[in-house]
Amino acid sequence: MNFPVWRQQLVRSLHVHRSKPDAKYFQVASISKDNFPKLRTMVFRGFQSSTHSLMAVTDIRSEKIVDWQERAVSELHWYFVKSREQYRLSCEVTVIYQDNERNGAVAAFGAELGNPDILTDIYAAQWQALSQNARQGFFCPTPKSPVNTSSPTLKKDESSELREQGHSKEGISQYFALVLLHPFCVDYLDLKTAPHTRTVHTMNHQQWTYQEVNP
Amino acid sequence: MNFPVWRQQLVRSLHVHRSKPDAKYFQVASISKDNFPKLRTMVFRGFQSSTHSLMAVTDIRSEKIVDWQERAVSELHWYFVKSREQYRLSCEVTVIYQDNERNGAVAAFGAELGNPDILTDIYAAQWQALSQNARQGFFCPTPKSPVNTSSPTLKKDESSELREQGHSKEGISQYFALVLLHPFCVDYLDLKTAPHTRTVHTMNHQQWTYQEVNP
Repeated sequence: MNFPVWRQQLVRSLHVHRSKPDAKYFQVASISKDNFPKLRTMVFRGFQSSTHSLMAVTDIRSEKIVDWQERAVSELHWYFVKSREQYRLSCEVTVIYQDNERNGAVAAFGAELGNPDILTDIYAAQWQALSQNARQGFFCPTPKSPVNTSSPTLKKDESSELREQGHSKEGISQYFALVLLHPFCVDYLDLKTAPHTRTVHTMNHQQWTYQEVNP
Repeated sequence: MNFPVWRQQLVRSLHVHRSKPDAKYFQVASISKDNFPKLRTMVFRGFQSSTHSLMAVTDIRSEKIVDWQERAVSELHWYFVKSREQYRLSCEVTVIYQDNERNGAVAAFGAELGNPDILTDIYAAQWQALSQNARQGFFCPTPKSPVNTSSPTLKKDESSELREQGHSKEGISQYFALVLLHPFCVDYLDLKTAPHTRTVHTMNHQQWTYQEVNP
């Protein structure tokens, strides 16, 4: 697979920042049901093999999942401190979780990629790659639900009950979701050059081309 | 003026990071005309005096200005690396530039704040506070317009022509805009605590209250 120019640049930016765990954080914007822009940090979990799709994971109880059910698009923002480079990636979004795995959507999408099991395999592998702490989060109460201030931390029995409920398949929480971000436009800005360099990369019929633009 | 809890926290986060210029960068999400989420980095230029509105500056030729003309709302994302705190601020947006200054909108808004001239004064002060380099950007070609690859950098005569066109009022570029971001909801997440602490702060009738929620 040939890498488009933006991906070659991104691979280099990640390499330059390989000692900085924060360099794997990017921001992801979505549109809420009530037409409000929303954004949050997500962690880059690599590229899906044989594609230019970026992977991230999340809890299906989080608000962005509802946003994507309405409108499965996002812009992704990635800033690299040392090299002073900014990437903005316009993406289509696919969310893989256990319910849509059961209903066959995931197998159908996998078949398009030439292997019906591929996404189920990636899904399980991403769960395995999580730290113990990160996994624990998927057995906690619903994100953004009010905390009972008289017992602000989760009680032991509640926690194990949730853990039991949560374990639905080979120990993977039912709330665990794999997010695939498929870029179709990349806006690259290099702030170390004078004047700044900016290029816009667009995909048409699976072909990437780019244009140099004013910063 | 009493500071709501989120602002007291934000003041502390800024203080902890005072030696890091990058800590003044936040991400701002908007919705484009074609209903796509957009985001980019902006630089925090302080709070507007006697309010909780955050200030930033931009070029009125940038795409976010068009987004805000359609829908003057944004979410703002601010992550502090050292203290591992994330702020998400839902905001209404006001853009101050020379054209709307002329048509009286700015004076009207200023009058609401008790001084018709206050925004014109802040506008000029923000321009004065810019570095020479940052000011220069407002006399450059339109952001994201294609670069003529045979002459990728601006020619001297073009540059001075633009500078002349741009100087419309006391040396301030006509493209210079002051952006006021008025928060009405703040989602605060502290990642150094175990479990993580998250609070949602909302404004009702100019009163801020908050609720502790699950992370």
